[in-house]
Amino acid sequence: MLSDADNEYMCRVGPGTPMGEYLRRFWIPFLLPEELPEPDCPPVRTMLMNEELVAFKDTNGDIGVVDNYCPHRRASLFFGRNEECGIRCVYHGWKFDINGDCVDMPSEPAESNFKDKVKIKAYPAREYGGLIWCYMGPAEHMPELPEIDWAPLPDSHRVISKRIQESNWVQSVEGGIDSSHISFLHSGVTPFLRDNPDKRPPARVGSQQVNFTTTDTSPRFVVDETDYGLLISARRDADQDRYYFRITQMLLPFYTMIPGSIEPGRQIGGHAWVPVDDYSCWNFSISWNPYRPFTEEEVKEHWSGAGIHALTDHNYVPLSNSRNDYMIDREQQRYRTFTGIRGIGEQDMGTQESMGALTWRAGEHLGSSDSAIIAYRRRLLKECRNLQEGIESYAATHPESYKVRSASVLIKRDEDYRVAAADRLAARI
Amino acid sequence: MLSDADNEYMCRVGPGTPMGEYLRRFWIPFLLPEELPEPDCPPVRTMLMNEELVAFKDTNGDIGVVDNYCPHRRASLFFGRNEECGIRCVYHGWKFDINGDCVDMPSEPAESNFKDKVKIKAYPAREYGGLIWCYMGPAEHMPELPEIDWAPLPDSHRVISKRIQESNWVQSVEGGIDSSHISFLHSGVTPFLRDNPDKRPPARVGSQQVNFTTTDTSPRFVVDETDYGLLISARRDADQDRYYFRITQMLLPFYTMIPGSIEPGRQIGGHAWVPVDDYSCWNFSISWNPYRPFTEEEVKEHWSGAGIHALTDHNYVPLSNSRNDYMIDREQQRYRTFTGIRGIGEQDMGTQESMGALTWRAGEHLGSSDSAIIAYRRRLLKECRNLQEGIESYAATHPESYKVRSASVLIKRDEDYRVAAADRLAARI
Amino acid sequence: MLSDADNEYMCRVGPGTPMGEYLRRFWIPFLLPEELPEPDCPPVRTMLMNEELVAFKDTNGDIGVVDNYCPHRRASLFFGRNEECGIRCVYHGWKFDINGDCVDMPSEPAESNFKDKVKIKAYPAREYGGLIWCYMGPAEHMPELPEIDWAPLPDSHRVISKRIQESNWVQSVEGGIDSSHISFLHSGVTPFLRDNPDKRPPARVGSQQVNFTTTDTSPRFVVDETDYGLLISARRDADQDRYYFRITQMLLPFYTMIPGSIEPGRQIGGHAWVPVDDYSCWNFSISWNPYRPFTEEEVKEHWSGAGIHALTDHNYVPLSNSRNDYMIDREQQRYRTFTGIRGIGEQDMGTQESMGALTWRAGEHLGSSDSAIIAYRRRLLKECRNLQEGIESYAATHPESYKVRSASVLIKRDEDYRVAAADRLAARI
Repeated sequence: MLSDADNEYMCRVGPGTPMGEYLRRFWIPFLLPEELPEPDCPPVRTMLMNEELVAFKDTNGDIGVVDNYCPHRRASLFFGRNEECGIRCVYHGWKFDINGDCVDMPSEPAESNFKDKVKIKAYPAREYGGLIWCYMGPAEHMPELPEIDWAPLPDSHRVISKRIQESNWVQSVEGGIDSSHISFLHSGVTPFLRDNPDKRPPARVGSQQVNFTTTDTSPRFVVDETDYGLLISARRDADQDRYYFRITQMLLPFYTMIPGSIEPGRQIGGHAWVPVDDYSCWNFSISWNPYRPFTEEEVKEHWSGAGIHALTDHNYVPLSNSRNDYMIDREQQRYRTFTGIRGIGEQDMGTQESMGALTWRAGEHLGSSDSAIIAYRRRLLKECRNLQEGIESYAATHPESYKVRSASVLIKRDEDYRVAAADRLAARI
Repeated sequence: MLSDADNEYMCRVGPGTPMGEYLRRFWIPFLLPEELPEPDCPPVRTMLMNEELVAFKDTNGDIGVVDNYCPHRRASLFFGRNEECGIRCVYHGWKFDINGDCVDMPSEPAESNFKDKVKIKAYPAREYGGLIWCYMGPAEHMPELPEIDWAPLPDSHRVISKRIQESNWVQSVEGGIDSSHISFLHSGVTPFLRDNPDKRPPARVGSQQVNFTTTDTSPRFVVDETDYGLLISARRDADQDRYYFRITQMLLPFYTMIPGSIEPGRQIGGHAWVPVDDYSCWNFSISWNPYRPFTEEEVKEHWSGAGIHALTDHNYVPLSNSRNDYMIDREQQRYRTFTGIRGIGEQDMGTQESMGALTWRAGEHLGSSDSAIIAYRRRLLKECRNLQEGIESYAATHPESYKVRSASVLIKRDEDYRVAAADRLAARI
Repeated sequence: MLSDADNEYMCRVGPGTPMGEYLRRFWIPFLLPEELPEPDCPPVRTMLMNEELVAFKDTNGDIGVVDNYCPHRRASLFFGRNEECGIRCVYHGWKFDINGDCVDMPSEPAESNFKDKVKIKAYPAREYGGLIWCYMGPAEHMPELPEIDWAPLPDSHRVISKRIQESNWVQSVEGGIDSSHISFLHSGVTPFLRDNPDKRPPARVGSQQVNFTTTDTSPRFVVDETDYGLLISARRDADQDRYYFRITQMLLPFYTMIPGSIEPGRQIGGHAWVPVDDYSCWNFSISWNPYRPFTEEEVKEHWSGAGIHALTDHNYVPLSNSRNDYMIDREQQRYRTFTGIRGIGEQDMGTQESMGALTWRAGEHLGSSDSAIIAYRRRLLKECRNLQEGIESYAATHPESYKVRSASVLIKRDEDYRVAAADRLAARI
């Protein structure tokens, strides 16, 4: 549990809020490249960190992110003309480039120098790693883009999906570092299947670790503080001699990496939870294979709606959502799966949204299996307080510190998982 | 009229409000049995008295009513698994029984005793009298279920419908004890029919009393305070020698019984108005015949949409509602009926909702025909203030006091209606 | 820009606000005659100046505008019976005439004189000039109806349309007096057409002045204070010897007249922006020809959706609206028109709504082309402050002062436009 004051401090990210200032020290992914497919294409309207913004790709292919409101008389630039290296307001023709400079002001006399005095709020933006990012903080603190494992890979090694989640970003990240819930939320184990072994679906290839999460549902957590965030290990009993470790990466401020297969060389999954406002966030789900391109079959599987990539409409609104109770199928829930909700992404989303858009943490009862969540909150609060005292975040200023990976390993009980998994956890091919 | 302060005091029922505390001394009906049809069926999510709750019927057929939010990390138990005598959260598998005890906590180590320290808010619930009830007050004050006339009857003697009403419970009850409005709202008398007697519909059998409500539109009210609530008589002139009395029962806190036919042995109608939140309530409409089962024809008539049972969708939302102006038919209104709205229930609902969800009583102008409403408000306020001073409600603690009935009688002008109707008003067959 | 305090003072119009009191000194148009087509027709529910009202046409054809809420128990009179010279509440039959007197109270005893003590809020209303108007101010200050140019004309000389606009009335009026935006918002000039002269549409007859707004996009403004409001002239270079003047009329509090063709004898266009609440207003668009009836062809053109008359549904909600981004067509915007939005009315509406329902004027940057807007705000604030000090508005009390017209003229550079256009600006045939 967390006091209401700390809860507010931790979750709210609008301009001027402490956590908002902290997050604005990082590059923030917010669009898919497909949303700005070509120079001079239609602009995109978006809320980000509680700010109304318009993004556009200019004639040179550079990306601009500006205030939604024209500084003249506040008409929306979403309806603007994206033309000749700038976005032009349709009301009186004022035009701004990606730097926020007013480059044309045809409604004023030519001899007027008013144009040179007017700027629009503009944020630097980059296309990188299969996403479009922007930096909303002070210019003097702008870091390099984070060298997160999936970013420098070619597109062929990566699948990225986007969906809106109707809950605050923190409770969404909390779901991503909670290695305990996979024994339940994503499980296919039900009393019916337990009592009717002949009805159980055939075991899938490589699903041995799933059995460990089934047989040991109360993992022991160890959380290590790192430069970039947290290294979270959840230990489960495998057999008499061995432990099964799931090692999750939490990269500040809102990235997570899910432990994948115990066999090396397989794909990894991860998420970014980006605040839209205090009650919703963009979920970017990334599947990547550092070693090789995805096969056509694998890509198809990613878009099947069964895994972490939720199916959405063209506005990135999930087809399963709170308005339709995530299409819960009570028969499925009774007999076949733990939730009756289809899709790992949908299961996560449904649960996290069901806690209320900004959950009331003073009403929680945390146990030892919530160690990672407790550590994450403590870290977030500390990072934010540090910044208020003038101490910059190490993670924000050291993009190379992001070169890590999640992993799961099966090791002898007397081995040190940090040593055994060291190779897997470093982001090197 | 009522001061804004008294209006708030009287109408708001959330946890901690004075009226909320008062209502929580009573058993409160809130579901139809059809909503929890069998053991281990899907749970039902509901708002009741401003609290978000989940109801479930467990493996034994016992009913649980618990907080919507799992006390662990506040995922909604609506998505939970109703299995093996408890409801299990799908997030981390915590399981609660109908008493609110945590009976399984598989995410924590077996040796942990955390499970024994965690409870969820849980309210006792019963199926009784064709409804599911819960008790939300202090355990030491829990009374027996009220012995209201329609409750102990077999199902065959009773029809119950449920609909949401988008107005505060008090103004809804006020409609139920307002014996004056039947001369207008439910009337078929219009200037057009007055001036065109040949267009009038044929008189229905047993509709003599309707004529009295037509010919005398300003009834004289006498309101008697009773142990259980109010006995409300509205006197109309019948003929030179006789009065027509409509005697309505108001049973605290929110039950009403409508005077039926002057012939004894006929069916009675009544309502319960149960606060969902401060701006909406459940309306349960009950038709019952204490003396014999309803015929098939009578049941069909109850569900025809013409009487007090409104037609609804499967979420108990009326088909006629504020979004479609209650399907008012202006031609019907002009020529045939007073409102142009079909259905007695719909007429009541439309009018009561049109006052605003929580009506502004300081803007009223009450007359002598509002005597029952004035008495009801005074009684509610007094009961509530009494409880704040430690005096328990007689009605809440004496369920046998509810054994009364409404009636209408046609008596000599010098007779005492209380004596003449005594037999009819007692709930005995 | 305007301080937040002045912005609130200027925009909010509910009962008791200073600007609300000021506006209530004027007759206010709010319905089309087609909404109350005949005596005893169904009443119309409307919000006006933040008050919930019901309008009805009584048996005599007189129009009543009364409080939405019956003063008895506050049921909505929208569901009332419009019959025999009054509107009757369906709850208990209380009936009110257009003066707000209670003319029947059948629920109370005949000997009661309660009826004579009850009144309902009622405003005088008139049908005039193709609109229905009401006066919401103090009786002792009620003026005559304004003699605005289009009002006394026969219907054949006039087309009036109505649509809801989801923005505050002031920012809507500001659009109407902004003679600068026509060089952009309503323009067909795009970089594509500039670079591809062969793709340009053929010049329309009489479109010479459009070329001036294209070639000179930064008009010089002169704003004259007048008794009735403002006379706004926007001067553009025509050729070496001549100026093109567009002269807009602003008639207090919310009427505008658009400069039409430079040829005399042509039609004029104008608007009324009537506050519904602080976040929306009715737009009445009026096209009129003082000299002759519209031809069938002209009427058809007015309803084509290309001009100032937006296409709406039967509730006067525009078909192009914020929910569908005003049906913006990005291909059209890129190649053919400045906005990609069809219809002059829709272009204005889309832009004005996009500023936010009550725009934040402290965030503006006004230039010399905003002179008329600055003058309008200053005038509004002054008029309102005057009234607070007891000085009545000249415009409100002198309906004959509205007899003016907008015009555009092409004159020698050394001519005085006021002299040259004097004949055109006076509302005389």
